[in-house]
Amino acid sequence: MNSAPQLATLLVSCPDRKGLVAALAQLLYGHGCNILDADQHTDQTAGMFFQRIRFDLRELHTDRVTLERGISDVAERFELTWRLAYESQRKRVALFVSKYDHCLYDLLLRHRAGELACDIALVVSNHPDLGAVAAQFGVPFHAFQIDKQNKQEVERAQWALLDQERIDLVVLARYMQILSADFTARYPNRIINIHHSFLPAFVGGKPYHRAYARGVKLIGATAHYATSDLDEGPIIEQDVIRASHRDSIDDLVRKGRDLEKVALARAVKWHVEDRILVYANKTVVFD
Amino acid sequence: MNSAPQLATLLVSCPDRKGLVAALAQLLYGHGCNILDADQHTDQTAGMFFQRIRFDLRELHTDRVTLERGISDVAERFELTWRLAYESQRKRVALFVSKYDHCLYDLLLRHRAGELACDIALVVSNHPDLGAVAAQFGVPFHAFQIDKQNKQEVERAQWALLDQERIDLVVLARYMQILSADFTARYPNRIINIHHSFLPAFVGGKPYHRAYARGVKLIGATAHYATSDLDEGPIIEQDVIRASHRDSIDDLVRKGRDLEKVALARAVKWHVEDRILVYANKTVVFD
Amino acid sequence: MNSAPQLATLLVSCPDRKGLVAALAQLLYGHGCNILDADQHTDQTAGMFFQRIRFDLRELHTDRVTLERGISDVAERFELTWRLAYESQRKRVALFVSKYDHCLYDLLLRHRAGELACDIALVVSNHPDLGAVAAQFGVPFHAFQIDKQNKQEVERAQWALLDQERIDLVVLARYMQILSADFTARYPNRIINIHHSFLPAFVGGKPYHRAYARGVKLIGATAHYATSDLDEGPIIEQDVIRASHRDSIDDLVRKGRDLEKVALARAVKWHVEDRILVYANKTVVFD
Amino acid sequence: MNSAPQLATLLVSCPDRKGLVAALAQLLYGHGCNILDADQHTDQTAGMFFQRIRFDLRELHTDRVTLERGISDVAERFELTWRLAYESQRKRVALFVSKYDHCLYDLLLRHRAGELACDIALVVSNHPDLGAVAAQFGVPFHAFQIDKQNKQEVERAQWALLDQERIDLVVLARYMQILSADFTARYPNRIINIHHSFLPAFVGGKPYHRAYARGVKLIGATAHYATSDLDEGPIIEQDVIRASHRDSIDDLVRKGRDLEKVALARAVKWHVEDRILVYANKTVVFD
Repeated sequence: MNSAPQLATLLVSCPDRKGLVAALAQLLYGHGCNILDADQHTDQTAGMFFQRIRFDLRELHTDRVTLERGISDVAERFELTWRLAYESQRKRVALFVSKYDHCLYDLLLRHRAGELACDIALVVSNHPDLGAVAAQFGVPFHAFQIDKQNKQEVERAQWALLDQERIDLVVLARYMQILSADFTARYPNRIINIHHSFLPAFVGGKPYHRAYARGVKLIGATAHYATSDLDEGPIIEQDVIRASHRDSIDDLVRKGRDLEKVALARAVKWHVEDRILVYANKTVVFD
Repeated sequence: MNSAPQLATLLVSCPDRKGLVAALAQLLYGHGCNILDADQHTDQTAGMFFQRIRFDLRELHTDRVTLERGISDVAERFELTWRLAYESQRKRVALFVSKYDHCLYDLLLRHRAGELACDIALVVSNHPDLGAVAAQFGVPFHAFQIDKQNKQEVERAQWALLDQERIDLVVLARYMQILSADFTARYPNRIINIHHSFLPAFVGGKPYHRAYARGVKLIGATAHYATSDLDEGPIIEQDVIRASHRDSIDDLVRKGRDLEKVALARAVKWHVEDRILVYANKTVVFD
Repeated sequence: MNSAPQLATLLVSCPDRKGLVAALAQLLYGHGCNILDADQHTDQTAGMFFQRIRFDLRELHTDRVTLERGISDVAERFELTWRLAYESQRKRVALFVSKYDHCLYDLLLRHRAGELACDIALVVSNHPDLGAVAAQFGVPFHAFQIDKQNKQEVERAQWALLDQERIDLVVLARYMQILSADFTARYPNRIINIHHSFLPAFVGGKPYHRAYARGVKLIGATAHYATSDLDEGPIIEQDVIRASHRDSIDDLVRKGRDLEKVALARAVKWHVEDRILVYANKTVVFD
Repeated sequence: MNSAPQLATLLVSCPDRKGLVAALAQLLYGHGCNILDADQHTDQTAGMFFQRIRFDLRELHTDRVTLERGISDVAERFELTWRLAYESQRKRVALFVSKYDHCLYDLLLRHRAGELACDIALVVSNHPDLGAVAAQFGVPFHAFQIDKQNKQEVERAQWALLDQERIDLVVLARYMQILSADFTARYPNRIINIHHSFLPAFVGGKPYHRAYARGVKLIGATAHYATSDLDEGPIIEQDVIRASHRDSIDDLVRKGRDLEKVALARAVKWHVEDRILVYANKTVVFD
């Protein structure tokens, strides 16, 4: 085993079936793959089974096409939904921002530090302000001026850009525009948003103001997949920090920035490492 | 100073006024009181000032009546709302429970360990089940059978009992009955409830079930003063714990019990130590 | 599948070997077992593989002896260390206490609430004080008076008692005696201790006093397996809570009690559910 | 009160004395100052009193010299140690770094976002690498090449630079050089260091490696004032995050970066807002 490892991740979900774990393990072994990590979950209420298998295929006896055909056969037998990701094919990510720079800096710095195993292909914004930040990190920046009239048109232009750049994941890093239902439908479970409250508390606008008015003793942030229902998509990660009567709204905003950065970064990391499965508007996160 | 300390706590709130801090400090000093601890807060948005002063009056030059008259005079000058509590007059607490025993045991054990500076005068329940627990700790137990017809009548009987026992604080330690608006109005900011969610998320019934359905990644508990608006009263304390896709509803209930115990116990401790001020449906907690 | 589930847990560890995951999955499937949950971990630094498989054997084609012989064969081939636990054979637990009652109450109450899937067979103490608590929960209580002369003799009597009661796990729930090396050697990875600090900070005595003197801003508690090296055994669980300059030593002790209860209860729960594997003085916890 | 507020903060510590609170409040009131915030603490074990008073002096009847002379008189009477800081005189801060950029970026970004009420006057390093980061934020950068021979000489040059730039606070933002005892003595309680462990666990080098080897379940970071005893200075802030058997040393390093950033930033914020008092190698933090 002198050659470098060639890693791949298989994500499967299906109605719970006896023999499935053995069938998949046997199949991978039969093709010469070495399982490094396997995590599984059975939701007994929903009768659903989920598994993430990470394996090394440098000693593959066959080839990738044959391996995938093999998985396909098992999938048919067990009514399996599956997805296979090769680590050598890094996901291409687009960051959508407006004027707040904290999540943008945070993701770009983590990426540069090697924390995020993806390519950050471009930054999209409805304002020109953060172009300089993108430039510092050598990431192409695309500004779109949006008003009430041109929203649909802008989205079409954005889709063309995303298609052209073969984007796998859109990250709304405090992007202050609401995407249309057409947009979210084009990227199911492939748009991650950060909401600056502990959902489902304070759905919608101005959550820090409302948290202040309600007098909560903890504030939160929630990273979730965007769906057509605002703030109602599958939750990936949440975090909170203590607040007190001494905190003004500005203090909540300041404390919240740290939460937003951390929750969003974890969600992006898990997504690009193929650790997340979605079902019933919830997530299974194999962390 | 050989005699034992005689501690008292003064809680004040008023529209923010220059000179107030000096006036109160001077007054207490003039009467021979020694300030041990003073904490204050100015809400600049609301223009309100709050202070908690804990002092030793064993070297009082005057007497309690004169001291209180002095405070009264300052209060009039500064439009002050105030409350003076002598530590020697321990608050009398009634615990209301139904069938869940975890909060009841927790409060009784903390009380026995000296964590709660109050007298637990009685336990009230709408079920006979927890009588044995109260008996173990030597606390009188009163069961009231409640049905749709007799609710009003039972509440009147409970009020009579609370009056007779000179109860200062009612703690709803997972009491599964909704108090009438008349009940909460009789004990403003003197009834503490524990709600088994991170308010304002999951207001109302079955919060763990709804948290499970929504797929949240943290669950919470909230201790608050009970008002006529269910789960809308001033929040005193909140706590959360991490949840994951592996947690069944039963797991959430189990994890939640630990949160409920801790959040409720802190709220009760702070109340009996006169650390809480309420305004604008929020709390100032001088912890 | 109308009969009740018959659950078992297989824990394995071995030098990392290709094909092992498939071999075990295939074996269990071949005998008619249905895998419900499988979690695994590879420590690439140590070159070690660990797995926990929970399965239902109600449709076992063979019998338990044959199944275990099958596992034994695989074990030999892969140099596997393994342990198979049937859920129907609940572990028998002995709680060792002295005078502090908070961990004892906590474990007994959690047990009664169904949180701990074990039998609490007896309580052992070096003081008679907590006999009444054990009695309340119907658990036999054994007090041993210990002095400098009789320590060895008492331990022998305790071993006889533990043998006679077929005890699987000893929990030192704030037991204020140091066990001899002979004692810990008799129960390798089967004695859980709770240390009232965040190890390796404040190894040894009076950790809260030393935390106070050092001015730490968080205090902790650590549940670990007891070994002959005091406080140096494999760590199972740790928790912390915020402290401040306002906290006296008594406050730290009070806050610490909550940490001790929670950390110890989690460790016991994980142990009796066969979620813990030990190697290199560390633990793998499949939670 | 139409003019802008002119804020100042008075920090005092002294042996506990009756009448002191009143004397200070009266003095400030007498000079026309309006107390906005006052926080105090009595350490009854040490017999010490501490207070932080934040006040508005825009309606000062006298002048600053007279006010300070008044405080001086009270100080003499009560054996008070005191420090008065005017908010208009922002503290000047020097950041010391080596090659890691996460704390540097974090502090510069927070400063730009208005979170830190100080001037970041310069960045000092023993490597040229991070000069570009300082440049991005318009902060002068000074690199000193350090070897075994020239250490003393470099420190002298650094002192000259710090003097010339009138630096109030030195922040060691992962500076990988040990300061001499002469250096720390020149800036008592004015050098903040971030140590990448939960002190006093893992004092000294390679704390993440040692945390990994010990198998801890939480890792931490500690911000403290630097003294001549390495890692033994007064602790200002600590934070922790959960770790598990799945975390490699690299994972601990990655998770730790987030802790280091947050703990250091809080310590710097509290210092520049004059919220910290030091005594007995501990801190009082009025947050």
